[in-house]
Formats: sequence, structure tokens, C-alpha cells
Amino acid sequence: MKAGQYPLRLATLADGSRDGQLVLVRPDLQGCVPAGAIARSLQDALDDWEQAAPRLDALRARHDEEGWRRAEPFLPGHCMAPLPRAYQWADASVYRNHARLIYQWRKEPIPPRYEEIPLVYQGGSDVMLSATEDIVAADAAQDIDLEAEIAVVTTDVPMGVDAARALDHIALVVLLNDVSLRGLIPGEVARGFGFYQGKPATSFAPVAVTPAALGEAWRGAMADLRVRVRINGAPFGDLRSGEEAVFHFGQIIAHLAATRALGAGTIVGAGTISNADPAAGSACITEARVRQMLDGVPEAQLHPYLDDGDRVNIEAVDARGRSVFGAIDQRVRIAANRN
Amino acid sequence: MKAGQYPLRLATLADGSRDGQLVLVRPDLQGCVPAGAIARSLQDALDDWEQAAPRLDALRARHDEEGWRRAEPFLPGHCMAPLPRAYQWADASVYRNHARLIYQWRKEPIPPRYEEIPLVYQGGSDVMLSATEDIVAADAAQDIDLEAEIAVVTTDVPMGVDAARALDHIALVVLLNDVSLRGLIPGEVARGFGFYQGKPATSFAPVAVTPAALGEAWRGAMADLRVRVRINGAPFGDLRSGEEAVFHFGQIIAHLAATRALGAGTIVGAGTISNADPAAGSACITEARVRQMLDGVPEAQLHPYLDDGDRVNIEAVDARGRSVFGAIDQRVRIAANRN
Repeated sequence: MKAGQYPLRLATLADGSRDGQLVLVRPDLQGCVPAGAIARSLQDALDDWEQAAPRLDALRARHDEEGWRRAEPFLPGHCMAPLPRAYQWADASVYRNHARLIYQWRKEPIPPRYEEIPLVYQGGSDVMLSATEDIVAADAAQDIDLEAEIAVVTTDVPMGVDAARALDHIALVVLLNDVSLRGLIPGEVARGFGFYQGKPATSFAPVAVTPAALGEAWRGAMADLRVRVRINGAPFGDLRSGEEAVFHFGQIIAHLAATRALGAGTIVGAGTISNADPAAGSACITEARVRQMLDGVPEAQLHPYLDDGDRVNIEAVDARGRSVFGAIDQRVRIAANRN
Repeated sequence: MKAGQYPLRLATLADGSRDGQLVLVRPDLQGCVPAGAIARSLQDALDDWEQAAPRLDALRARHDEEGWRRAEPFLPGHCMAPLPRAYQWADASVYRNHARLIYQWRKEPIPPRYEEIPLVYQGGSDVMLSATEDIVAADAAQDIDLEAEIAVVTTDVPMGVDAARALDHIALVVLLNDVSLRGLIPGEVARGFGFYQGKPATSFAPVAVTPAALGEAWRGAMADLRVRVRINGAPFGDLRSGEEAVFHFGQIIAHLAATRALGAGTIVGAGTISNADPAAGSACITEARVRQMLDGVPEAQLHPYLDDGDRVNIEAVDARGRSVFGAIDQRVRIAANRN
């Protein structure tokens, strides 16, 4: 079975539990129906995906036939992240232009063999934020940045899988904000163990969709969508996520599974979306600042990093302009001491 | 409540499910009783630790009174890792001597501010091995190494916690083998994103114990135990885990929680145990090789890395010589193509 073969849209309603309640979402994202009789949570569904996916699809087909007239309103503000906690979140950096710009910011060469071997890091997966939770940081001086990304969620992946067979293990596609504290990253990277403090909790758009639900937008083992980023309501980026990537999701998963198996519910990201065309704007503030610097904009006039009260909106739309995952819509909150 | 205040020993029996079945283990590790009426799995117990810990302690007290006469035999070979999958596994490197030797091997300086800021990386937590599962690697040329480590398991930790208050969130202490593929690490580190392929699945001794169960061996927010390592039956290391560390667990947790909250069940490691005294031997092969090189031993005569069929045994004992966590006892298996 191909894990992504049924056209499903799934979300997790907050119900006071840690893992929330699984719901099936109507194609227009305006309604939803409970799916708890099939699986209590999305992780439970992924743990037994071969059984759960066809049953979820039968439920979908029944509601499609009925016109979803028994659906409840789907309220993104009542959602948790599709996986409010996950057993793995591994993120790659596959957009050539992102590497080009970021390493100019770092004043370092692009990492060796960037186009030959996927560049990946292990992110924190124990606390995932919903689409509308605040981005909480201790200090704006940490240079709070957004990063709009597409990721996939896998079923169990055997060690040693190749890139072609890895595709059969892609169950879902998600949209996320890989928040980064740019001020902390160079110091962490210099120590050789990669990021930790520089990567606070990640936020997710409310709806996870199967590759089949993406239809023609699932192409070349990537989601070919337009991802729109706004900061405080102003357009910041309008990027194509299916282009200019040096690796696709099958190749990233094969890299991750080279020395160990991956558990069901592993989230695999492709990194900050980036297009070479400056007219597309950016999916992170650092890229925009580097472009400004290359254009000779003085330091003091560069686009600021995020600060208390700032609002970040990220949404992906398909070729007909329909929202695919619902929107990420977060505010930044500076909390010097939350303890 | 201090999460570690009750003297508990817990393990996870394999029952065909992903998370196994929680059992309470007798102090001598020879018997166990089911704890499923309190919490189905260890993660379930940690999710509601304030309720579960006193109930587990009442169960323990009842069996202590009865002399554990209703206990079943405790068979480590029937155990999974205490947490067969976890939402976070973050590992530090706090033993001064390990850094000293490892960076001689890497021919690099010790990372900047090693004694001022904990050096941490995010490990894979989706698939944890039991104490007796094989270490499977694709190729012995990857230089398969063991790393004997002590870690703690936390309850929910708020963002911004300080080192003193972090201690209240330590529920359990565990012993693990942080298997490393040394041949892959320098190439990964050189790319700046830290380890990924170089860190395959981690193995755990069967029993997780609370700080209270360690008694006087829980000292200075570290487990002060003797950790014995054997390779193919031959003594390889006999180290003190409570000494020569530049940070204790409270400080490591505070570092991890500086920019985000940590979820219940987060595993926090202190890194490869290492003592300056060469007579203590080593808790990883690379250290032993560096010591040999410094002694002028030729390359061809250095202690070999692990190969097919090799056996690794790691056990921690208290001041009276009693096994604290049960033993890790694994074989290495080279599987060129397991897919």
C-alpha cells in the first residue's frame, strides 16, 4: 500500500488531552467530522495506518456522498498541531537559493556537497505549537525569525530504504513555521553539535493532507504549491514550494533512514522554501535581509526581525487558489521570565 | 512535588504494542508486578506523573510489606527500552575528559566555552532499542562505537526554568548505549547541522529508577555510580559517573529549556562517561584508541571498533555492587542491505 493513496484531510481538535482528537476535514476546510471511532489521535492512526487509512477514506467517501451535511464547522482556533507531539522531527535544507543567501549572511561557504548529500538536523518534537499559538521568546535580541516550510509525515520506514520506496511511506503533508532564533545559531553551530536553543517550538497549520488529496500538486515527490507569507498583514513572500529543490522527500527520507529505522509519525521537512527570483520574496526574514544587504541597503534599514506583538501569517494555496492546510496565524510574545 | 521523590524502579515489558506494558520492579531486580492499572505505559505514567507516582509508590510499599511474594520473575530479555519511543532525546557532553580525548581524535580544539555552556545535541527518539536488541549497522567501516551514558527522564519542564528548579522535574534515571558511527561523524559535523546518520538507534538498560531509589548515589544532581563496560567479555571500563562532569543534570535541563518548554518524557543525557584516570578505562572505543595513540601504539594495533558478532555489556552498580538498571547486553550485526 502507498501510505498517501487516499485523499484525506485530517486535523486534531483540542480536547484537553495531550494528543487531541482526530477529525476528518471537508475538502473546502469549512467543516469536519469526528474520526475518533477509527483512531483517537493522529498518532494512533499513523501507528496503524494500513488499517486506519482505508477506514478514514470510507468515512470521507460517505460524507462526500452526503455533501458533508452532518459536518461541524471547522475552527482552526480550536485545533492543535496535527501531531501536538511527535516522536521525530527531522528537517533538511534543500532549497538551493536558501543556502546561497543564508551562507552569505553567515559569511561562510555553503556546506560541502550541499547538492550531493541532504543537509539535515534533528529538531525538537516534544512540544509542537498550533497554528494560532503565540511564538514566545525570552528576548527580541535573539533575532526571532520565521521559516515557512513544507514537511511530510511518514509511516514506519525500514532502515536502508531507497528513495523510490521511501515515497510509499509518506502518509501526510503539512505546512509549518520552523521558528529560528538567528542570534543564537552561529554560536551553536560553531560548537559542532548543531542547533538546539536556536530552534524553539515549531508551529503547524491545522490540516494535514495526504499526497492523494494534493492531486496534481503532488509532483516529483514534492508539494508544488504557492506558499504565501505575510508579516503584520504586509505581503512578504509568495513562493513556489515545488521548485528549485536539490532533493525531494524520497531522497531526504532515504538519507535519514540510512543508519536506522524511522518510527511512524516521523515529520520530515524540506527546509525553508526559497526561490531565486527576488520578486517571490522570502519565507524567512534573514533571506530578505541578505537580499537587502546585497542591494546596498544600510544595516539600520534592514527588515527587522520579529518583536513583541508582531503577527506572522503563512498559508499554502493550490493552483486554484484554495487553501490547502489552513493558515498559520501567530503573534510574537516576548516573555523575559515565564518561569 | 519533586518528581523523583518516591523510590521506584520501572520497566516496560514487550507485549506486542508499540509502547509496551508498565511494570514495577523489585529492588533486587529479580521480580516485577504489573502496574497497568495505574498507567498502561511509562509514557502514560509520565504524562500524569503527579497522580501516577504516588500510586506507583503505594503499590511498591504494599509489595515491600508482602516481600514481593506475588512478583513474577523479571526477565530483561522480555523488556523493551523503558520508553520504547520518546518525544525527545537530548544529549549533552559534560565529562571534561571525554571532550579532551575526543577532540584530540578529531584533531580540533575543544568547542568554545565547553565549561561555561552545556554542549548538547538533539538525538533520534522515535525508535529506542531494548537492552538486548542487536546493534544493526550497514557496514563495519562506519566505525561502530558504543557510548555508555547516564540520562534522566523529565516531567513537563516550563520554558525558562533555572537549574535548581529543574531538579524537581527529574522523574527517572536511566542507563543507555548511545551508539555512534564514528566514521560518519566528522563529515556530518563539518557541514554545521550536527549529527544525524552518525547516531543510530540508542539502547537502554531495562530498568528506570527514580532519584529516590538511588538513595545516596543521587548526589550533586548526578548519579554517582560505577559503570562497567565489557567488550566480548573483557573488561573495558569501570568508571565513576558522578565525577569530573562540568555540568549536572539541573544545569543541562535549564540549558535545554531556555528557549522552549520540554514535554513529559524528555530524556536528557550527560554524554559519554569519562574519567581522567586511565586505570578507569573507557566508556567508548574512540577514547581508548586516543589513549593508545598518545601512548605511541601504532594505528594497526589500536583497539578495533565493533564488528559483526561483537558483544557489548554495560552495567551500573551502586556502592554495594548491586546492579541499578540491569545490564545492557547487545550483539553487533552487520546487515549490508536490510531493506
